[in-house]
Amino acid sequence: MPLAELRRRWPDDVSERVLVAFDCANESRIGDDEVLGRVPLTLDIDHHHDNTRFGDVNLIVPDASSTGEVLRDLFRELGVELTPDISEALYTAIVTDTGRFQYTNTTPKTFLLAAELLRAGADRQRVFQGVYESVQFAKLKLLARALDRAQVYEGGRIVISYLLRTDFAEVGAAEPYSEGIIDYLRAVEGAEMAVLIREPPREGGPTRRVSLRASVDELDVSAIARKSGGGGHRQAAGFSSEASIEEITEF
Amino acid sequence: MPLAELRRRWPDDVSERVLVAFDCANESRIGDDEVLGRVPLTLDIDHHHDNTRFGDVNLIVPDASSTGEVLRDLFRELGVELTPDISEALYTAIVTDTGRFQYTNTTPKTFLLAAELLRAGADRQRVFQGVYESVQFAKLKLLARALDRAQVYEGGRIVISYLLRTDFAEVGAAEPYSEGIIDYLRAVEGAEMAVLIREPPREGGPTRRVSLRASVDELDVSAIARKSGGGGHRQAAGFSSEASIEEITEF
Repeated sequence: MPLAELRRRWPDDVSERVLVAFDCANESRIGDDEVLGRVPLTLDIDHHHDNTRFGDVNLIVPDASSTGEVLRDLFRELGVELTPDISEALYTAIVTDTGRFQYTNTTPKTFLLAAELLRAGADRQRVFQGVYESVQFAKLKLLARALDRAQVYEGGRIVISYLLRTDFAEVGAAEPYSEGIIDYLRAVEGAEMAVLIREPPREGGPTRRVSLRASVDELDVSAIARKSGGGGHRQAAGFSSEASIEEITEF
Repeated sequence: MPLAELRRRWPDDVSERVLVAFDCANESRIGDDEVLGRVPLTLDIDHHHDNTRFGDVNLIVPDASSTGEVLRDLFRELGVELTPDISEALYTAIVTDTGRFQYTNTTPKTFLLAAELLRAGADRQRVFQGVYESVQFAKLKLLARALDRAQVYEGGRIVISYLLRTDFAEVGAAEPYSEGIIDYLRAVEGAEMAVLIREPPREGGPTRRVSLRASVDELDVSAIARKSGGGGHRQAAGFSSEASIEEITEF
């Protein structure tokens, strides 16, 4: 669907419509607490293993790399033809949800589907440029500051860096621009854990957010995060803190 | 082949052996000017379109994403079974030569082969970690300096940065660590051309090396490079210069 046709408001007759939620692991992802009580029927189509099954009909395939992969199988059942537009949308879903075919959810089936979608007209180059070659200049500057301040600890097994509130203002970066920076720290040779401390540039939030990533299976960073009142997964977790950057780093 | 078994010297009886050159676009890539005169038979297996056909037998497939893809077809003809070790080596060749399935050489056939190699035992996660998650810490520091100095010109259509000889020494980086940095400049939203000027940290080389990358088909950076005595492809080219960084940037 072209983005120009995207609506961000519910239609007036929403109470007479079917709501189809794609890639929403739970109700809050729909972005409106009340709409589920207003629509007569909700279809929940997703691949997240912890989906709460909030729909009247739930199609949840945890083995699928992405909701795009689930949709391909559904389209086959329904006899929907793969047009170039549909193929490109599904291809985008696969590329982004597998991190360019490198996360552990990438299976032989994912690659077979990618081949099929290219043949059906998905423009691989356009997806790549749209998703990965449209980096805001201020994001590069923010990345530069975080990498410049990175330090190794414990003989290289831990890599830590930080971003100050003033950094966001000085380079003109919004808060989400710091996303993905921690992956550069995690990719350092020999690093088992990466830590990025940042001061969110918004009012009313915590003073500091601490993100944790593990590169080895033996390490469970969610345990570390929980001790500080946070949470997350074994490989990716985080917590909020009022401690100073020096105190957090020493800990 | 395990790296431990890799030999870096020609065997004593090289004059009685067959030389098989993989992924070498020309003789100089073999790293020894004289060996071709000493071996009785040379097989040249490659996918570079500008391969000089230096072998007695040449198998050059320009449409293939990588020499790994050429080898898969050859193995099928020869009845060689895809063991997990062979599959992982071929998978590594494909992943690296397609830049994680995103360069224009990625075709449906590439994806079908990737699916086949995973099924035959290639460890996708190990390849990913070995290739992309083993970044030297000094490389991050070098990247930080280049990104911190990046500037936009021509309303954002050109992104330029530079690395000084002292940068390499101060962060402890070898010359090849600057590889790939220009891709960060090229990925900036709206950038049509990226320029990285660097002072190579070796004796006897040029004072400055200028690398050029184009993000749009209309731009041919090899034409710019040729005007300064350099060369390359439409999308990637470079030249040497004795001019100052300011002079190069103004030009």
